[in-house]
Amino acid sequence: MSDDKKLTPRATDFSAWYNEVVLRAELADYSPVRGCMVIRPDGYGIWERMQRALDDMFKATGHRNAYFPLFIPESFLTKEAEHVEGFAPELAIVTHGGGKALEEPLVVRPTSETVIYAMFAKWVQSHRDLPLLINQWANVVRWEMRTRLFLRTLEFLWQEGHTAHATHDEAEEETRRMLGVYRTFMEGWMAMPVVTGQKSESEKFAGALRTFSCEAMMQDNKALQAGTSHNLGQNFAKAFDLKFQTESGGTDYAWNTSWGVSTRLIGGLIMTHGDDVGVRIPPRLAPTEVVIVPIWRADEEKTRVLETANQIRTDLENRQRGTEGRVRVHLDARENMKPGAKYYEWEMRGVPVRMELGPRDLTNQQAVLVRRDTKEKTPVAFAELGVAVERLLDVIQQDMLNTAKERREQNSLRGNITYEKFREVMAGEGAFVYAGWCGGDACEAQIKEETKATIRVLPDEEFRSPEAPTHCLRCGQPATTEAVWAKAY
Amino acid sequence: MSDDKKLTPRATDFSAWYNEVVLRAELADYSPVRGCMVIRPDGYGIWERMQRALDDMFKATGHRNAYFPLFIPESFLTKEAEHVEGFAPELAIVTHGGGKALEEPLVVRPTSETVIYAMFAKWVQSHRDLPLLINQWANVVRWEMRTRLFLRTLEFLWQEGHTAHATHDEAEEETRRMLGVYRTFMEGWMAMPVVTGQKSESEKFAGALRTFSCEAMMQDNKALQAGTSHNLGQNFAKAFDLKFQTESGGTDYAWNTSWGVSTRLIGGLIMTHGDDVGVRIPPRLAPTEVVIVPIWRADEEKTRVLETANQIRTDLENRQRGTEGRVRVHLDARENMKPGAKYYEWEMRGVPVRMELGPRDLTNQQAVLVRRDTKEKTPVAFAELGVAVERLLDVIQQDMLNTAKERREQNSLRGNITYEKFREVMAGEGAFVYAGWCGGDACEAQIKEETKATIRVLPDEEFRSPEAPTHCLRCGQPATTEAVWAKAY
Repeated sequence: MSDDKKLTPRATDFSAWYNEVVLRAELADYSPVRGCMVIRPDGYGIWERMQRALDDMFKATGHRNAYFPLFIPESFLTKEAEHVEGFAPELAIVTHGGGKALEEPLVVRPTSETVIYAMFAKWVQSHRDLPLLINQWANVVRWEMRTRLFLRTLEFLWQEGHTAHATHDEAEEETRRMLGVYRTFMEGWMAMPVVTGQKSESEKFAGALRTFSCEAMMQDNKALQAGTSHNLGQNFAKAFDLKFQTESGGTDYAWNTSWGVSTRLIGGLIMTHGDDVGVRIPPRLAPTEVVIVPIWRADEEKTRVLETANQIRTDLENRQRGTEGRVRVHLDARENMKPGAKYYEWEMRGVPVRMELGPRDLTNQQAVLVRRDTKEKTPVAFAELGVAVERLLDVIQQDMLNTAKERREQNSLRGNITYEKFREVMAGEGAFVYAGWCGGDACEAQIKEETKATIRVLPDEEFRSPEAPTHCLRCGQPATTEAVWAKAY
Repeated sequence: MSDDKKLTPRATDFSAWYNEVVLRAELADYSPVRGCMVIRPDGYGIWERMQRALDDMFKATGHRNAYFPLFIPESFLTKEAEHVEGFAPELAIVTHGGGKALEEPLVVRPTSETVIYAMFAKWVQSHRDLPLLINQWANVVRWEMRTRLFLRTLEFLWQEGHTAHATHDEAEEETRRMLGVYRTFMEGWMAMPVVTGQKSESEKFAGALRTFSCEAMMQDNKALQAGTSHNLGQNFAKAFDLKFQTESGGTDYAWNTSWGVSTRLIGGLIMTHGDDVGVRIPPRLAPTEVVIVPIWRADEEKTRVLETANQIRTDLENRQRGTEGRVRVHLDARENMKPGAKYYEWEMRGVPVRMELGPRDLTNQQAVLVRRDTKEKTPVAFAELGVAVERLLDVIQQDMLNTAKERREQNSLRGNITYEKFREVMAGEGAFVYAGWCGGDACEAQIKEETKATIRVLPDEEFRSPEAPTHCLRCGQPATTEAVWAKAY
């Protein structure tokens, strides 16, 4: 944090702001290998909290974790035709091992459908073995040309859920259930509102029957695909001979789903909540929720202030609050550093609540709570500090979601917008545009080429416009569906 | 679990027993890629509990988690001369990415010293940035020719701690501290006693100043190197220019340590505790601690028994017990499966306590607790069930450690053993042999060649023989130190 230069404002250059804030808040760093990143402890701490929350929800819905190999035989990828076509350009290939050229090159997994369903085929014999509900936390590699820290890196960390079911409908239900888990997590923990819905044919996962997605609006009005859930149908089951004996004694191929979220979510969190002085981390994901900054001049003051600060920290840490665990507090007792410099640093790092405590506060038996999200300051009597901190953390968590939701709604356009107006918006400030679509590939492709906007989702009912748009945004023919258009990361 | 054939007994063929038990208890499976493994949910559940316990201890000793790239430029490995010599034969190499040949091949990390200390060099400027205490949970790849599930696989999961310090002594203290953490974990959680000490020069980590190790004795009397902690000196700091400004204003290279344990520990757990009917998992690491097997004939009995079984499960799950969390209970209510078949399956899987509950037990207001480790059965009144289960789990945990410790002591030889006798033991039943060593490379190499036994450690004081051996096992010259010899995995 030696660099005291101000961040490039978001309004000036959102992309420059993003890179600066990731580096200066010490969330991640560039690595010696092009396109790979180093996730620093403050960034990894967010990921650990994301993992814990998601993992609890996966287990509560009956899933178990397992681990499958990093390497996949090249021949496996070619077994599902659409799948290999989708991933072939992005593969990293191991050709040598133990000093020798390999007989068959190995692919570093870009995703694990192929190897996982090959194993499922070995484990599943009967309908009694179904459903099989597995999740894996792992690293994957996709050879991207243009990379951004967290958002698009050659290697990233993620979870991939893989399940097998006896019927199409059960698989569809699972696909939807996990999309719902993602939404609950993104809104409830990340304070990041999302629009859910189905992907168009051209945007679905390579090898899936249907893909569903959670799409979040960043502060530059671009969309971030934050999590996807796929109904894979029987495509992979057929490719890997994943069959089972049905209850009636016949045999059938299993129905699969897969679903994943990645360290990209950390990028989404930053671009949803960050401001011109740094990141803002929602309390439920913040490795540190409260930082106590003691203030003193004379040595005698220092002793008294630090003693009280330590006591407050201990009291807060010992509070048990429902399912949230204990309050995560850090006391910043560094010497030779002015309080103002500490404020600056903790604002950059996004700690939700700062507690200022000086000699005068001791006299008044109070501390001052400062919200990172609104900068609002409130003096609170010592006796009420525990309750006040907990309540404030809850309020911040909720307010951050509301603020993000309002911003999204302000930047969403609905109704029969003209294509001219649409092009203007996409060339300018951007938006989520809810518009009619004829369902044709040609219109979709032309809009993408002319404006760089894509269909993010065919929105779920709850997100659809009260009055359904009647005509296709591009060709003017009757609309068969409503689509959410935006430029995307 | 469809295969009802008995396991090969340990006494007949320990190695066959091991492979069978890993597969039949569904802890791991072979993967389509030679030498890689699939960790199945029951095996991964043990790993998750290992991770949680270790991670808590790492954090309690001031470490933070981070994540570094999977790929390392080939040139990085050559910067520390001994390091590259040690790892070069075991590397997997990525030569192609995104459809093109790479300008510089990338190594899939076999360990991360090089890339991590390159990053540390960027982050550390002053003595105020030290100590830097980082840990990483990751997968690594070492191209082994002969592989065994969990024990030696091309890819494995592990943690690697990496730290930087201002002085040699601080680094040495850290190296020792983390060896102590490993020992606490192995004995306190895995119920696996270990001998700690320093490795000989020929057995130390490639690039280290000194390596310390925890060595456990398996049931075939072979040693398993279960965890190592290295004082790396300034070797990597010099190779990667990891310098800092000292308090007095000069500059110096930092002192590094690294330390790791891996999924190999699961193999160690199995080979320490397994018996001829399956694995035995120590309670603290068991994903399921208690399995309730309800017994019924008539439908009317079934309803009553299941109702009570459910009530008992809920009661147990709701008990909060200190730092152990809630009791982890599974109710096996499967239909069309006899209780005996369920017993057989849960014994194979190693659940520490089975609770049998039938109509007669209901009449007597009791359940029968059966220990997996000793097969001992005890009827317990419903009113005392919660307390009894908790106490029994603690007793089993402790007894498993004691049993393993006794076995190790019974199979350890101390004193001035003749080399002839030593060869006989190593050719036969094996042992940990505490013997004198002249300190010469020649004797060490000859013994290894003639008996396949190696120096596991120069034991720490607590493990040394009351009377120090006086002569070298091989050459008969005066001993400079005591060494623990054994054949090893």
